[in-house]
Amino acid sequence: MKGTDIRVIPGLFSIAIIFLFWFVISPPQGVSANAWHLLALFIGTVVAIIGKAMPIGAIAILAITLVALTGVTNDSPSGAIKDALSGFSNSLIWLIGIAIIISRGLAKTGLGNRIGYYFISLFGRKTIGIGYALALSELVIAPVTPSNTARGGGIIHPIMKSIATSFGSSPEEGTSRKIGHYLALVSYHINPITSAMFITATAPNPLIVKLIADATGSNISITWGTWALAALLPGLLCIALVPLIVYAVYPPEIKSTPDASTFAKSKLIEMGLMSYGEKVMISVFALLLILWAGVPAMIFGADYAVNTTAVAFLGLSVLLISRVLSWEDVLKEKAAWDTVVWFSALVMMATFLNKLGLVAWFSTVVESNIHQLGFDWIVSAIILVVVYFYAHYFFASTTAHITAMFAAFYVAGLALGAPPLYLGLLLAGASSLMMSLTHYATGTSPIVFGSGYVSMENWWVMGFIMSIVNLTVWGVVGGLWWKVLGYW
Amino acid sequence: MKGTDIRVIPGLFSIAIIFLFWFVISPPQGVSANAWHLLALFIGTVVAIIGKAMPIGAIAILAITLVALTGVTNDSPSGAIKDALSGFSNSLIWLIGIAIIISRGLAKTGLGNRIGYYFISLFGRKTIGIGYALALSELVIAPVTPSNTARGGGIIHPIMKSIATSFGSSPEEGTSRKIGHYLALVSYHINPITSAMFITATAPNPLIVKLIADATGSNISITWGTWALAALLPGLLCIALVPLIVYAVYPPEIKSTPDASTFAKSKLIEMGLMSYGEKVMISVFALLLILWAGVPAMIFGADYAVNTTAVAFLGLSVLLISRVLSWEDVLKEKAAWDTVVWFSALVMMATFLNKLGLVAWFSTVVESNIHQLGFDWIVSAIILVVVYFYAHYFFASTTAHITAMFAAFYVAGLALGAPPLYLGLLLAGASSLMMSLTHYATGTSPIVFGSGYVSMENWWVMGFIMSIVNLTVWGVVGGLWWKVLGYW
Repeated sequence: MKGTDIRVIPGLFSIAIIFLFWFVISPPQGVSANAWHLLALFIGTVVAIIGKAMPIGAIAILAITLVALTGVTNDSPSGAIKDALSGFSNSLIWLIGIAIIISRGLAKTGLGNRIGYYFISLFGRKTIGIGYALALSELVIAPVTPSNTARGGGIIHPIMKSIATSFGSSPEEGTSRKIGHYLALVSYHINPITSAMFITATAPNPLIVKLIADATGSNISITWGTWALAALLPGLLCIALVPLIVYAVYPPEIKSTPDASTFAKSKLIEMGLMSYGEKVMISVFALLLILWAGVPAMIFGADYAVNTTAVAFLGLSVLLISRVLSWEDVLKEKAAWDTVVWFSALVMMATFLNKLGLVAWFSTVVESNIHQLGFDWIVSAIILVVVYFYAHYFFASTTAHITAMFAAFYVAGLALGAPPLYLGLLLAGASSLMMSLTHYATGTSPIVFGSGYVSMENWWVMGFIMSIVNLTVWGVVGGLWWKVLGYW
Repeated sequence: MKGTDIRVIPGLFSIAIIFLFWFVISPPQGVSANAWHLLALFIGTVVAIIGKAMPIGAIAILAITLVALTGVTNDSPSGAIKDALSGFSNSLIWLIGIAIIISRGLAKTGLGNRIGYYFISLFGRKTIGIGYALALSELVIAPVTPSNTARGGGIIHPIMKSIATSFGSSPEEGTSRKIGHYLALVSYHINPITSAMFITATAPNPLIVKLIADATGSNISITWGTWALAALLPGLLCIALVPLIVYAVYPPEIKSTPDASTFAKSKLIEMGLMSYGEKVMISVFALLLILWAGVPAMIFGADYAVNTTAVAFLGLSVLLISRVLSWEDVLKEKAAWDTVVWFSALVMMATFLNKLGLVAWFSTVVESNIHQLGFDWIVSAIILVVVYFYAHYFFASTTAHITAMFAAFYVAGLALGAPPLYLGLLLAGASSLMMSLTHYATGTSPIVFGSGYVSMENWWVMGFIMSIVNLTVWGVVGGLWWKVLGYW
């Protein structure tokens, strides 16, 4: 019997939490019994996810079952199952699911490796240049790789490791600090920044778009282009700073690397000319970027606007028709189906928490506590963002963190007078940037940390430093940039 | 490069069909341009599926892409993608998907084999005896399984599959025709018949009772007993015929299995006592049957009614918590994800064909054409029932078909002079029997078809033959039987 993926203690704890909220704690004034019961299920779900009681997809199945059977959203059984399944037709979920499938083509065709080695052949004569080459590679593929773990851990990290190895730098031989330590930290800290730069660069970003739209009565609807433009300046600045800051804090022993460029060039020669599949992948990338950025609508007018998810489907259609991906490839991309299931359950619960007025109530609580301190909106927003950000020390998943805290903190900030789009973009950025903090912050972290180049102490020190740098850049430079753009 | 699963000629033919309907043939009066264009996409999709231009799931991705980008259902891009993805939250689709996953437990625990050997030990001296054993099992549980999909796809099909496997008959090894091909067709064609026999044997039957009552000003109110008695004779006759007819058309290579009974008994002894997993599976099956039969509602009242799909989710939850299935098992059940994708696309298109008035337009045309011919009620009723029945080639769900066409066709028949209860019972039977036609006719179809024992050609040939047999038995033998009963 398989299924050793269940942890009993966190599971029982999660059930206890649900019972506690459902039966023991009475709903506070202004909160309906149904809303409170849904909150009980939601908290139980989030606790189970954080405690890894089961794989997140299995927890999602249980959550859907509980919502459907308890009828907390709807008294009629047919209405309740309709609500419980409603997440599955959410277009944001399929944007991510389909994009994960598309990014499979990067690995399958070898295009991901080619991009990495290409940049190293260009900039790899100095160690810091290799750092920038890795950063650029991450940036180029970020718009089409919504699994930041697949991007940072699956594509960039192996390249970083093979370069470190080629310089005789490995944890086993105690030679990490020669160059591997530096490259591991640089490549890791680029990952949160690229994740913050595009809606399609990490799975929960579309959830943030939805939460902001819900909170503002659909007054603020962040498009792919709006997000990318807003994050462009602070994102590029942060990316430019990472290789320098890591260089200053933990300098590599090998500083000049004329051999790296040669190594990358030999790898490229080994790969030969671009294959048919790589060419199709590049064309599809270009197509997606042009359509996601809204170029047809800019040129031909609003009648030519296309939906972001429809574009993702178009990209997958092209890959299927051109035979770059087979339908079998699609079906065996388990990460996509996993994400579709857990994401649907979380979006469904978040939607009904909002509909039943619970987010509004909780944010009122947060807001009144901050309000009592008597600060203006700027200080209040700083408090909110800092608390939200550093709470990630207690989360092993940005999705769980965002699902649990984003909506309430955002609505509280609005009530305290923060400009809606400024606060939305800042919290959106923070939701990815917080990945820098720990070695369990996101899926990429255990992969890079697990390769052993960086000690836990150095990892946390570097994470804390980068958190201050990133937050400052996003809040100040970003804020000014958004002012220039007329966003607030 | 994988992806040799594309056939160019059928693909081009499908595209040509779409262009022909879209640009060359004008929509008839009373049909909007959008409705006509959706029909073009739908016919193109069906042609591509029939011609196997690509795997059906890949075709579904293209169909969703086309509906989302052309905006035939909705002018706004966000509305169009919402419509295009709407099938994904349809509860019927997840009933099917989850049932496929649950039935994985039968194979994993070995319970499927045990049940298979048990049936073989009882009836297995001839292949045809195994066919009757499956038919009787279906009949026995039909009155308490209002989801014919759960019954045929979730319970009977896995048993059929494990019997076929125990005879070394599998599509992967090219040995379908040994016995699996025969048993798949028999077990599938029993499903429409049992569905027609009890109000509680398929989900939309109660809707038919209501539509007939509405159409006759509540003069005709069909009870559970009336329906069961009326369907008893034609139903038993059809069930008796299925194993014989399939035997005549597509004889199995293994015909006589004299040692099978002894062999099966020795296998059962070899398997020993039931394992933990098998016991959990049996408990889950019992739980599903009790809840699908609506036992809690019968005992405790309508407040304890549960939704069929919610019950399926509960079953999967139990299997996950009890570790009989791991989340990894769920993710690698590719047939489930495949079915969810292509069935969602078809249900979505069928839904909007109905919403855009294309089905209504179609039935109005039929109705007025029959009037003009000036036939008596018998010929008129035959025409009506035949048109109603074979229209199911265009539906991926009996519920959608019945909702769209039943009332109009029934009222037309009454106006043409048909006896109300005769026509009502005949159309009611037809509403289930039409499931025999295609591999997307009802939820059971994709499950049985998806197991790969039967080619699409053989599936459609057998479906057409059974449609004539079933309709004749229901109309003639049923008609005489209802005359004897004094129903008309």
